[in-house]
Amino acid sequence: MTATYLLHASPVGPIHSDAGKHLPLGLDSVTITGGSWAPYLERNARTTIPHAQSWMEKLGWVGNFAAVVDGTIAAVREGREFSDSDVYKLMEAMAWEIGRTGNPDMERRFRELAAVITPAQESDGYLNTRFGHEGQEPRYSNFEWGHELYCAGHMFQAAIARLRTTGPDDFTATAVRVADHLCEVFGEGGRDAVGGHPEVETALVELGRTLDEPRYTALASRFLELRGHGLLEEIEFGQQYFQDDEPVYEAAVLRGHSVRALYLAAGAIDAAVEAGDDEKVEAIRAQFDRTLARRTYLTGGMGSRHMDESFGEDFELPPDVAYCETCAGVAAIQVAHRLLLWTGDEAYADVIERCLFNVVTASLSSDGDAFFYVNPLQQRTEGTTPEANRPTPRASSSQRAPWFSVSCCPTNIARTLASLPAYVATVSDDELAIHQFVSGTVQANPAGTAVELELTTDYPADGEITARVATGAGAWTLGLRVPSWCEGAAVAVNGQVVDAAVEGRKLLLSRTWAAGDVVTLSLPMPARFTWPDPRIDAVRGQVAVERGPLVHCLESADLGADVEEAVLDVAAGLQVVDGDVLASIAHRSVQERPWAYSPTPVTGTRSDAACRVRLQPYREWGNRGPGTMRVFLPTA
Amino acid sequence: MTATYLLHASPVGPIHSDAGKHLPLGLDSVTITGGSWAPYLERNARTTIPHAQSWMEKLGWVGNFAAVVDGTIAAVREGREFSDSDVYKLMEAMAWEIGRTGNPDMERRFRELAAVITPAQESDGYLNTRFGHEGQEPRYSNFEWGHELYCAGHMFQAAIARLRTTGPDDFTATAVRVADHLCEVFGEGGRDAVGGHPEVETALVELGRTLDEPRYTALASRFLELRGHGLLEEIEFGQQYFQDDEPVYEAAVLRGHSVRALYLAAGAIDAAVEAGDDEKVEAIRAQFDRTLARRTYLTGGMGSRHMDESFGEDFELPPDVAYCETCAGVAAIQVAHRLLLWTGDEAYADVIERCLFNVVTASLSSDGDAFFYVNPLQQRTEGTTPEANRPTPRASSSQRAPWFSVSCCPTNIARTLASLPAYVATVSDDELAIHQFVSGTVQANPAGTAVELELTTDYPADGEITARVATGAGAWTLGLRVPSWCEGAAVAVNGQVVDAAVEGRKLLLSRTWAAGDVVTLSLPMPARFTWPDPRIDAVRGQVAVERGPLVHCLESADLGADVEEAVLDVAAGLQVVDGDVLASIAHRSVQERPWAYSPTPVTGTRSDAACRVRLQPYREWGNRGPGTMRVFLPTA
Repeated sequence: MTATYLLHASPVGPIHSDAGKHLPLGLDSVTITGGSWAPYLERNARTTIPHAQSWMEKLGWVGNFAAVVDGTIAAVREGREFSDSDVYKLMEAMAWEIGRTGNPDMERRFRELAAVITPAQESDGYLNTRFGHEGQEPRYSNFEWGHELYCAGHMFQAAIARLRTTGPDDFTATAVRVADHLCEVFGEGGRDAVGGHPEVETALVELGRTLDEPRYTALASRFLELRGHGLLEEIEFGQQYFQDDEPVYEAAVLRGHSVRALYLAAGAIDAAVEAGDDEKVEAIRAQFDRTLARRTYLTGGMGSRHMDESFGEDFELPPDVAYCETCAGVAAIQVAHRLLLWTGDEAYADVIERCLFNVVTASLSSDGDAFFYVNPLQQRTEGTTPEANRPTPRASSSQRAPWFSVSCCPTNIARTLASLPAYVATVSDDELAIHQFVSGTVQANPAGTAVELELTTDYPADGEITARVATGAGAWTLGLRVPSWCEGAAVAVNGQVVDAAVEGRKLLLSRTWAAGDVVTLSLPMPARFTWPDPRIDAVRGQVAVERGPLVHCLESADLGADVEEAVLDVAAGLQVVDGDVLASIAHRSVQERPWAYSPTPVTGTRSDAACRVRLQPYREWGNRGPGTMRVFLPTA
Repeated sequence: MTATYLLHASPVGPIHSDAGKHLPLGLDSVTITGGSWAPYLERNARTTIPHAQSWMEKLGWVGNFAAVVDGTIAAVREGREFSDSDVYKLMEAMAWEIGRTGNPDMERRFRELAAVITPAQESDGYLNTRFGHEGQEPRYSNFEWGHELYCAGHMFQAAIARLRTTGPDDFTATAVRVADHLCEVFGEGGRDAVGGHPEVETALVELGRTLDEPRYTALASRFLELRGHGLLEEIEFGQQYFQDDEPVYEAAVLRGHSVRALYLAAGAIDAAVEAGDDEKVEAIRAQFDRTLARRTYLTGGMGSRHMDESFGEDFELPPDVAYCETCAGVAAIQVAHRLLLWTGDEAYADVIERCLFNVVTASLSSDGDAFFYVNPLQQRTEGTTPEANRPTPRASSSQRAPWFSVSCCPTNIARTLASLPAYVATVSDDELAIHQFVSGTVQANPAGTAVELELTTDYPADGEITARVATGAGAWTLGLRVPSWCEGAAVAVNGQVVDAAVEGRKLLLSRTWAAGDVVTLSLPMPARFTWPDPRIDAVRGQVAVERGPLVHCLESADLGADVEEAVLDVAAGLQVVDGDVLASIAHRSVQERPWAYSPTPVTGTRSDAACRVRLQPYREWGNRGPGTMRVFLPTA
């Protein structure tokens, strides 16, 4: 079905670059048809995308485009300055979904939205509902907060998805005119400016790749060069909020607003890859590596601070007031994907996995129609229950909300899930590498051999992954990621354990394959304790529990009490029973006193007996009504 | 000298209520002439007040009033919507300073400011530079953020200080017309509204007391009754941000924006005291007590969150991202003072002391011309150095800033220090009670005896406090607070240790005194470890050091390294050498790894030898250039 819509060369995915060590494989090469992921992808199409569209229509974000056409926009505009971008992210999700399944309902929805949007374009190519019309502030009068370039970037990404799945149409032509307009206004010799919220950079490079248009890549490079020199006005949060404090390739670590920093890093990698500038790619890689080592939560969440949605300082990782915006998880996946392609290092596939299992899907309710904007690792109170019929502020409660006044996260989840097959596998010369464990198929041509693999797994419920060579007789190499959490991985071919070569965190099986060969990767998956670096003050004396790729947590629903009273007995170990992780939890009570500080150590009174208590996979927390939760637990 | 300016009855201080267990003594009864506090008070008059005035003139906040008169205000107005209030807080500081010392320079400054302000009043009594003039938004069109009632409250407090020190003048008459105007607009039968930032409530009660005008107290009560019913529009931070979520006397704990919550609590106590409603006073007392037990930092700082400047949840007390706004320390002193007067419980005098020594004076630079807006208990990086010639955002660095774009804190410090004598002593029937230890004099009439005490102390450098009965022969009781941190306090009269009665935390010496009697209170003051409640996750496994009322901290300037590397050896104890507190500190180094979480506990490598390192009184931190700092230190 995909082929019907495919007018352009492979890969049908968010990234199309052949400059790295690995080539991506897109939706035309990879399918997800079963296992634990298929329900997520189906629910995304069935529930999440229509849910998001209905909210945007109800709130008038879609209607803004029509109001531009009829001239009433200044009086009637709804939503924040960046609301156009959410419509585009939704369309990107629809486009990938169309590419993935050919879903005719998605095609209809996409066309209807496109028909509302395209007439809103000005004759010179400008397209934004928030600026430049009668009664509005002028175009490009507020680079700090206006989000015009950001909205354009998301439009380009929707157009890229459309071009790579269905092909050119009015919407993509409109997007191209926006890009040409930007080149005219901001290209070499034009206005020196950068947008407060990076995003257009990565989008422009990819649009350039899609259309083989070097002007777009050049404009991205120009924006990247101009950034970091204080072109944006000073704000209370400091220039680092929008990464205008230091030249992009000279910084040591990601900083400021986490989503901005990560989108910028993605664009900076893309432009450097296009330029063949290894040093610049390595500069961003080093920033991201330091960020992973010092500014990332166990879940893969990034961004410690609510106030400016920023990374904090190194090791400033409080679990309770963590921000960990869902969009930062999506953006971290984008950066990690680029670095995986560039380096072939499975460490980045590990990051993708961690963010998929513990941020992106953690944000989503079990029904697919409610979301966390922030993803803390500790919930001290039940909080207030979000209302069903109106947008919720982004601040956390123990319950997911149907929509937000700033609603960037739901559509970011939607576009990530709709394009998920593109993150599963890559090819590199004679190697076909499997990075994410799904049930489905992978088609590729390692060493010139047309290979089709059938992947089957219940992962992450267990660690058995089977790859059957449906077609692909010949000599080529199968690469299999062994996650960094895993010890004792084993691989068998046709039931016989084999010694695989090891490259970093990857097993390499180089052999002459026959159709029907079956490879089994066995990843032992006991529950395990995970200890934090002692420089993370906020979780000193505490330990977390993981199993496979899933961070676990203790919820009051399982404890039958506020989790604040829990102490974990490490010596009693962990058990896995029927897929549930059980830990030994004691209750600790602390006497009420008028002052929380004491001349002698306060330990509280611990219950004699510890009980075995079920821990919940973190991504499923908060699905059983209001409660308290914590990932890190004090040790006995 | 004071008497020259004193037209009104004692006490000359911020609170004049005889309904509580203790009566306050004001600037007419208490002087501070030496010891550790006198330099603070002198520097306040010499440096801080003129410094603040010059910034407000430079930034145009004073000029706004003249621009109202000449009709240009809409075009030229400078400063935030609440900038009028800072001018008033400055005038309040000046008025107390005039009352305290008769300082003619202050008198000149006050009159000059009054001459600029009073002509800006409208004929109906309205006075605010931000609203209601041609080209501005209408009066009372934005109760959430407009701060009109808040500004009025601060004006009243300046007028109260003026009335109680110098007497009625044009400025106080102007303030009275503003109050009458508010009664007309918002009094019974008028408009139902509350201000987003509480402050007018406490000011109205006190103005009512000052002028014996029940309409003002009634209006305060009305504002308090109207609050908590959602009159304010919903905002992202929730209704609790401005305490409009629950009826004032029904809440269980202080919550939302910490300064707002504390000013409101002060007003709620005042109105309940005036109404003789013990239950309502006790309700606020219970809120404050729970706040002290669960939502207060070791320093007395309140407010855990930067984003909405709010109290966090119970035990959410991260030291590094602590907000602890200086103004919250000032406001906590106001609440504690009211509860001390009402209950006579020295626990509240302890709170005042803690906030004075570890928030208010900690905010102030050693030169008196730079300030911390936020007062964290851990500084992870040096941060950026505030600029000398323009306002700094409120966010923290390791350096104090000369001024802020939101500059409520400097004038709050100034008015607190200028009125400090009013917090020292109270009288209750036959008892004269000393709550704060200063060098100076106290005059009062316990049991009808005219008493003058001469107080002498180097506190907090040591714990010896001498009270000489200069006049006061007769039978009366001397009450002396023994701080809650103190063990082994002893009291002697004329060199002979005596057994004093104990009432809560107070020693009571009831005897027939003779002029010349000398009482010596000896408070042993070793350095001591202080352990946090185990529910404060953010400092688990850490300990703080205090000596007397002073919280101490480790600074990189003393360690010679980033304090992140420090581990405290508790077993080695603490020493006090020449007034310096020394602790035994080992260095710990942690190997760099690509991921901050590990399958085995990570302890790092500890140096074999621990060194004796000087700890700095927290209130003096950051006075030696950029550096890192922490109050709570990991234990070995």
